[in-house]
Amino acid sequence: MWAIVGTWRMALEGITKAAGELSAGRSAGDALEIAVKETEDYPYFKSVGYGGLPNENMEVELDAGYMDGDDLTVGAVAGIKDFANPISIARRLSLEKCNNFLVGTGAEAYASKSGFERKTMLTQRAKIHYYNRLKQEQKESKAANLKPYIGHDTVGMACLDQAQKICVATSTSGLFMKRPGRVGDSPLVGSGFYADSTIGAATATGLGEDIMKGLISYEIVRCMEEGMSVQAACEMAVNKLDLRLKKINGTAGDISVVALDKKGNFGVASNISGFSFVYASEKTAPTVYVTELKEGHTLYTPAKQEWLDEYIKTRTAPLKLL
Amino acid sequence: MWAIVGTWRMALEGITKAAGELSAGRSAGDALEIAVKETEDYPYFKSVGYGGLPNENMEVELDAGYMDGDDLTVGAVAGIKDFANPISIARRLSLEKCNNFLVGTGAEAYASKSGFERKTMLTQRAKIHYYNRLKQEQKESKAANLKPYIGHDTVGMACLDQAQKICVATSTSGLFMKRPGRVGDSPLVGSGFYADSTIGAATATGLGEDIMKGLISYEIVRCMEEGMSVQAACEMAVNKLDLRLKKINGTAGDISVVALDKKGNFGVASNISGFSFVYASEKTAPTVYVTELKEGHTLYTPAKQEWLDEYIKTRTAPLKLL
Repeated sequence: MWAIVGTWRMALEGITKAAGELSAGRSAGDALEIAVKETEDYPYFKSVGYGGLPNENMEVELDAGYMDGDDLTVGAVAGIKDFANPISIARRLSLEKCNNFLVGTGAEAYASKSGFERKTMLTQRAKIHYYNRLKQEQKESKAANLKPYIGHDTVGMACLDQAQKICVATSTSGLFMKRPGRVGDSPLVGSGFYADSTIGAATATGLGEDIMKGLISYEIVRCMEEGMSVQAACEMAVNKLDLRLKKINGTAGDISVVALDKKGNFGVASNISGFSFVYASEKTAPTVYVTELKEGHTLYTPAKQEWLDEYIKTRTAPLKLL
Repeated sequence: MWAIVGTWRMALEGITKAAGELSAGRSAGDALEIAVKETEDYPYFKSVGYGGLPNENMEVELDAGYMDGDDLTVGAVAGIKDFANPISIARRLSLEKCNNFLVGTGAEAYASKSGFERKTMLTQRAKIHYYNRLKQEQKESKAANLKPYIGHDTVGMACLDQAQKICVATSTSGLFMKRPGRVGDSPLVGSGFYADSTIGAATATGLGEDIMKGLISYEIVRCMEEGMSVQAACEMAVNKLDLRLKKINGTAGDISVVALDKKGNFGVASNISGFSFVYASEKTAPTVYVTELKEGHTLYTPAKQEWLDEYIKTRTAPLKLL
């Protein structure tokens, strides 16, 4: 059995590619790197890799995380600029004995010395988003209704290969208009991702600052370790954190998770409706699902063709300066 | 009741100061900031703040984390150069709505704009350590016996104030001779620190790359939530991770933790002997303890006067270029 699950519709092309590799016997690590690179390279996904939305200085700063569930090694980068594939750098770092998590210019120096591909990651389209947002902010009152979440969608994927190895990977450009150097949950082990081949893996997307308060990816894997099903573990962890945040602040940031157990079954939970994710396995062709929040449960159905068409239409629609 | 616990003998002066403040009714956050700053400012502690050991480029890069157990807000910096008190920057960041974790030059820009004190953090003594290490490495074979752990001691402190608030804080210069931009567990929520006023708090020190594989600080607080005593939770979490790492790699990096429950009782565990820590409370004057590992249990006794004298003597001994 092999299986792979990823956050958001944007995981589809990568997961489709990875599914072929996994079925041919490729390792979870290779499959994940191939899949996440696909998302990073696609210019119309504005929250990951090339074409990702910039920080408040109009710089694209990227974060990525990787974990090998066999030996629990972690590799991660945060606040890295102008490298094509942060996920590949993160994965390479997971092979180091120490110095597995590098940030900022140090991460760039490592990537440069190691021969990773340099690329200007700020696109014309991202610049238009940036300028339009500035204009919008000037128009609105200081207490603007703009949610920081807008444009903050991490691609996170968990994968089981035929050798029963489980790995997990994340990649993101982080919060649109973030402060330079801001790090969310995505490159943080336990928050954005966690994998243990003896149990399963989980990965999160949403408002990183809230997600990290509950170490949600670790918590999901831990709940599975205690015997919970992967679906129950996802719902339990999201509901617990969501409830706690609402108790403290009256509100909670968006939190969405996907997970895999060691048999390749997936779980999903979100505190919003309309979260999408992609799953493929030995038994299931790559499928996009859309979630609905109903009485504390996350229900999901395969995305309809209109939804899929609309998604691509919106992403690729011509963009004009306001 | 108030209480404060901190890793290593180097927490003593800070905890002594903080104890006075806590007994006068000061908040856990204030007390922690005062205490950690004391450790950061002392030039002879070579793994925290001023006088901290540099990275492989002879730059002192500092990490700090802070968590408020009432609202679970986190503040952290990593890879920050030439600011006197990383803990103060981390604590200030915990008050932001988002952008709570900043790294590298972004963190420096924030600190500079916010008026935090600039200071050259590389001391003459740290330079001698650096040059001597280089020389030592040249002498020894490539597979040198030097453990990365040498000189890597994070100060981590957990504190309960009279208003029943629990907070936690960490500060470190990280691994001696680390790669530029390397981040260990210390500024990572769940790994280096975790606090929840309804339960307790924990903080870790040791080889960050191993500590983060087990999210040990979160795990300790979680075990307490399930009803375990603070001491049992510490031992359980350290033993579990230590065992797992040894199963995977044959060896485990050093892992030491201290924790507080919501009544102000402390717990401690380490997979090495000779870990020291400091505790003070309404009922206990600031005391340094030294641990011994015996049959899977961490035993501790107050440090003897000779041990305390020897500690300061070693730290402040004149240092010569090899």
